[in-house]
Amino acid sequence: MTPGFTGGTLDRADALRHDAEALAAKLADARVLALDGLMPAVAADGQLAWIARDAVPADAELVLLGLDAQGRAHAAVLPAAGEEGTAPAMRSPALMAVLAALQPGEAATYATARSLLDWHARHRFCARCGATTHAFRAGWGRLCDACGTEHFPRVDPVVIMIAEHDGRALLGRGKGWPEGRYSALAGFLEPGESIEEAVAREIGEEAGVRVGQVRYVASQPWPFPSSLMIACVGVAEDDAITLDTNELEDAMWVPREMVRAVLAGEAGPFLPPPPYAIAHTLLTVWAAEPAAG
Amino acid sequence: MTPGFTGGTLDRADALRHDAEALAAKLADARVLALDGLMPAVAADGQLAWIARDAVPADAELVLLGLDAQGRAHAAVLPAAGEEGTAPAMRSPALMAVLAALQPGEAATYATARSLLDWHARHRFCARCGATTHAFRAGWGRLCDACGTEHFPRVDPVVIMIAEHDGRALLGRGKGWPEGRYSALAGFLEPGESIEEAVAREIGEEAGVRVGQVRYVASQPWPFPSSLMIACVGVAEDDAITLDTNELEDAMWVPREMVRAVLAGEAGPFLPPPPYAIAHTLLTVWAAEPAAG
Repeated sequence: MTPGFTGGTLDRADALRHDAEALAAKLADARVLALDGLMPAVAADGQLAWIARDAVPADAELVLLGLDAQGRAHAAVLPAAGEEGTAPAMRSPALMAVLAALQPGEAATYATARSLLDWHARHRFCARCGATTHAFRAGWGRLCDACGTEHFPRVDPVVIMIAEHDGRALLGRGKGWPEGRYSALAGFLEPGESIEEAVAREIGEEAGVRVGQVRYVASQPWPFPSSLMIACVGVAEDDAITLDTNELEDAMWVPREMVRAVLAGEAGPFLPPPPYAIAHTLLTVWAAEPAAG
Repeated sequence: MTPGFTGGTLDRADALRHDAEALAAKLADARVLALDGLMPAVAADGQLAWIARDAVPADAELVLLGLDAQGRAHAAVLPAAGEEGTAPAMRSPALMAVLAALQPGEAATYATARSLLDWHARHRFCARCGATTHAFRAGWGRLCDACGTEHFPRVDPVVIMIAEHDGRALLGRGKGWPEGRYSALAGFLEPGESIEEAVAREIGEEAGVRVGQVRYVASQPWPFPSSLMIACVGVAEDDAITLDTNELEDAMWVPREMVRAVLAGEAGPFLPPPPYAIAHTLLTVWAAEPAAG
C-alpha cells in the first residue's frame, strides 16, 4: 500500500546544490518541467511532460529537482517576482483529475516541484529583516540580500489519524466536504509536541475522545501547499464523542468490517477518502489488521 | 522509554486562541514563565519557575502556553522588537545542564515556549511582502500589517535513524562532536518526500548505504530551534560504507550486544548520545529488540 505522492525516482543530488560549477554544467541541458502556472502537463504515457532548457528564457531561474538514472538534470522554472499568488496554492478538482492520469512516481516529482515553487512565490522577503531575498543552493533555499539570513523551504507536519475502540474506527467529516464523505481526523503538529502527543491532542480537541497508546502507520508529502502527512492510530479509552462543531460537522464509529466493505467499493454509511490521500492508506492498513483494537 | 521534551501537562486550549475576550480574562492572572533571555529558571523541586502577571510590564505581549489542571493560564512574554537574535537559538552546554535539573514534563513546556519565542524573534516581517507583522491567536501566529497574510510557527521535520544489518547498527559521528561520541544519522526532511524516503535518502547520502524497509520508532520535539525529530530504523541491503566526509567524520557498524552494553554504562567503542536526545531512545529501543534485523 504505497501512499500517494511517494515513489519519485529522481536522485535529489544534494552535493550538486553546493557546487556552483557542476550545477551550472548539469542545468545547461536540463529537462524543464512543463507547467501552466502550477498545473502539470501530462504526456500520453502518464509521465510528466518536460521541455528543453533552451525552450525557456536564458535568464529563467531553475530549481534542481534531481537527476534521472542517466544523470540528466531535471528542473523547474522559479516564478518571477510578480507571479506570486496571494494565498498558498491549494488543490483543485481540475488538478486532481490531472494527477489521476499521472503514474505514481511522477506525482511525487510533481509534488516536490509544486511545494518548492509555491514556497518561493510566497517567501520573496526576509522574515527577519524585511529585505528582499534571492534563491540559492539550486533553488533549495533563499538568502537575504541585506542581513544574510538563510531561509529554507517549509515542510509542515500534519497528524492524520483514526481513533480505534472495540474494533471500530472513529471517522469524522469536515464542513463543506462532499456529501457522505467521512475520513480520518487531522491537524497541524505544533511546536513543542511529539507526533503521539499531537495525535492525542487533536482527537481530544475535535471529537472529545481520549486516546492512550498511539501507533504510527505511514506518511506522505502533501503539496497543498507543503505538508508532511503522518498517519497514525490512537487507541481510545472510551467511545463517548463530544464534537467540536467548529472543526467537525459529524463523527462516528465504524466497525472494521464496514470500513473494509466500503473500501472494497460496497455501499455503506460513508464515502471513502480518495486513493491518493493517506487517509485511504491509513484506513486500508487498519481494515486489514486482525481484530485486536 | 519516554523521549526527552515530551510529557508536558498543560492543556494548549486551542479554543481560547480564537476567543479574544475569554483569552484576556485568562491572561489577566496568568503565571508567566521566568526566563533570562531564552534560559529557564528552575525551582528547587525541578519545576519551571513562574512569576505573577503583574510582575511583568502591563504592555508585555504574552503567548498562551496553556492551562493547568486548575484552569490557570500559563504564558510567556514575547520578545520585544530589537531583542531578536541574529541566528536561531541553538543549544548550549549551560542550557543542557539546566535542563538536566528539570522534571521531564517541565522540559516539554519549556521546549514549547522556547521554540515559539525564537520563532517570533526571527519572523517579525512578512515573507510575502516584506511589511511588519504582529502576533495574533494568543501568540500562535503572526499577521501581516500590510497584506494580511497569516504566518504560523515553523516545525521542521528531521529524520534521525540507524541502518541495521545482520544484528548491527550503523552509527556515525559528525565533525566537531565530543571525542568518542557516535550516534544516529540525521537530516532535514525535504518538500516532496515521505519519512521513509527521507530516511533512505539521508543514509544513502551520508554513509552510502542502501536501505529498503524503514520502520518508525518514536518522535520528540527538539527546540533548537524548532525541529520535530522522527526516529526510524532502516534495513540495510548490504554493509559497505561510503562516507560523505562533508557530513560525517566516521561511521561504523556496532553489534546489538555492544550497543546494549554501552547504554548500560559499560566501556565500549563509542560514547552514547545524551538521554534527552531521541537518538538515545532509538538506540535503547533497538538494543532491546530480539535479534532479527
